[in-house]
Amino acid sequence: MLYLVGLGLSDETDITVKGLEVVKKAARVYLEAYTSILLVDKTVLESYYGREIVVADREMVESNSDEILRDAQTEDVAFCVVGDPFGATTHTDLVLRARELGIPIRTVPNASIMSGIGATGLQLYNFGQTVSMVFFTDTWKPASFYDRIKENRDIGLHTLVLLDIKVKEQSLEDMARGRRVYQPPRYMTVGQCAAQMLEIEEDKKERAYTADSLAIGAARVGGKTEKFVAGTLKELCDSDETLGGPLHSMVLLGRRAHELERDYIREFAVNKETFDKSWNAEYGKQ
Amino acid sequence: MLYLVGLGLSDETDITVKGLEVVKKAARVYLEAYTSILLVDKTVLESYYGREIVVADREMVESNSDEILRDAQTEDVAFCVVGDPFGATTHTDLVLRARELGIPIRTVPNASIMSGIGATGLQLYNFGQTVSMVFFTDTWKPASFYDRIKENRDIGLHTLVLLDIKVKEQSLEDMARGRRVYQPPRYMTVGQCAAQMLEIEEDKKERAYTADSLAIGAARVGGKTEKFVAGTLKELCDSDETLGGPLHSMVLLGRRAHELERDYIREFAVNKETFDKSWNAEYGKQ
Repeated sequence: MLYLVGLGLSDETDITVKGLEVVKKAARVYLEAYTSILLVDKTVLESYYGREIVVADREMVESNSDEILRDAQTEDVAFCVVGDPFGATTHTDLVLRARELGIPIRTVPNASIMSGIGATGLQLYNFGQTVSMVFFTDTWKPASFYDRIKENRDIGLHTLVLLDIKVKEQSLEDMARGRRVYQPPRYMTVGQCAAQMLEIEEDKKERAYTADSLAIGAARVGGKTEKFVAGTLKELCDSDETLGGPLHSMVLLGRRAHELERDYIREFAVNKETFDKSWNAEYGKQ
Repeated sequence: MLYLVGLGLSDETDITVKGLEVVKKAARVYLEAYTSILLVDKTVLESYYGREIVVADREMVESNSDEILRDAQTEDVAFCVVGDPFGATTHTDLVLRARELGIPIRTVPNASIMSGIGATGLQLYNFGQTVSMVFFTDTWKPASFYDRIKENRDIGLHTLVLLDIKVKEQSLEDMARGRRVYQPPRYMTVGQCAAQMLEIEEDKKERAYTADSLAIGAARVGGKTEKFVAGTLKELCDSDETLGGPLHSMVLLGRRAHELERDYIREFAVNKETFDKSWNAEYGKQ
């Protein structure tokens, strides 16, 4: 059996009782470690679960999945994923391959940022499609997120923006020279995301949003040090110190936002005066 | 401290280790039992958690929340919610009230149907806003879901449809006579949902979808007997026997559905021939 086990969002105790039983008994335990991270190290998980864990990087999952699935027709393999196992496309591939090999599959769901973001107080019903924001470089500024945000905003919906993480990345130079040397991990901040969004709006000028549009920056959702900051996109450009360490996510508000949502998030406002001004100009309109 | 503890989707072992620790230690434990249900009875939870549980019905949570919050400034109260605590509006109210009373709050996230529905193989990124479907009566057929589905479909997105549950409902006669007698619980099926959707399309004729549009019926997501059925809306009208008991949910596909999603869900097709025909007519268009 292939078990896809969600680990939740924060630390070793976010696994479900059902998931923990699977991990303790499985013949092999893998940890997918490139689409998201927990706030604790692998060694903490190993000690808590009482099991050795093999870190599965992108290359392994995408190109060498048969090693993960080896003998899973007859023994149990636990493939652990931060959040819920079905947040990222890659794991659909793994399941399709398991099906081809006649391996039975079971999922142990857990909290995902897709639903955990409800802790902001924004109603999950009012979210449109989710977008991803990648780190811009001088020559590569992919802006496909912009059209999708505009589609959501045109019908008044919130947008969850998931922020890039870079783990086990090589520099161009090391890659060219074939050196297996990796850069330190990088996690995009809400400030970087807000700045990139404003850069693209400046370029496209279709008013999908403005510097005065309201958004919520979220840090370490579901963790003990969970932190939310509400403000205009311009204000959120400078919110990283308040938010603290990774992981960060962001929600751009849609104009259909309800007064109950306002009452909830106003508590997180950087500046209640600018918050109210932006709210009155753009939101609470059904 | 007020702890909002997510219980996940299926049975007593879907609670997280962190959540279980909170429930075991809290001064009082409540179970919100009207927006969703687990697939096991309260007594199973009580025996597994080793705690007595007070069922909090809608009236208690919405009108008598101060009883739930009593003394939570100084002792721990666990308010347990099926799925994730922030799936339903009601709990935002409870938190706002707790804030007013100066009670510290912590959330223990868990799987929600909003993310668990990813187990269909459909990409969570491609979902638009979520809608609710209530039981129609002869005189009351609320159709606000229709416009929202149309908004999603116009931009090619999937729609998660959450299906009505009726627990502790009085008949009109009993209500009129002031008798506190309750009807047996009712859970909407995918077949009922599909039929109601087609009834409203027949009425509105805006082609938000047709009888040939593809959808996935989902039953007992995250449970051992989890079951998915893919087919046209017409086919899904007759899928209840295949799907089995509650809880059911449905996803109406958006035309941006990707080939990888097709490969995954085709396995669940009632009829692969009609599935392929509908797919080729309407889907996989970016």
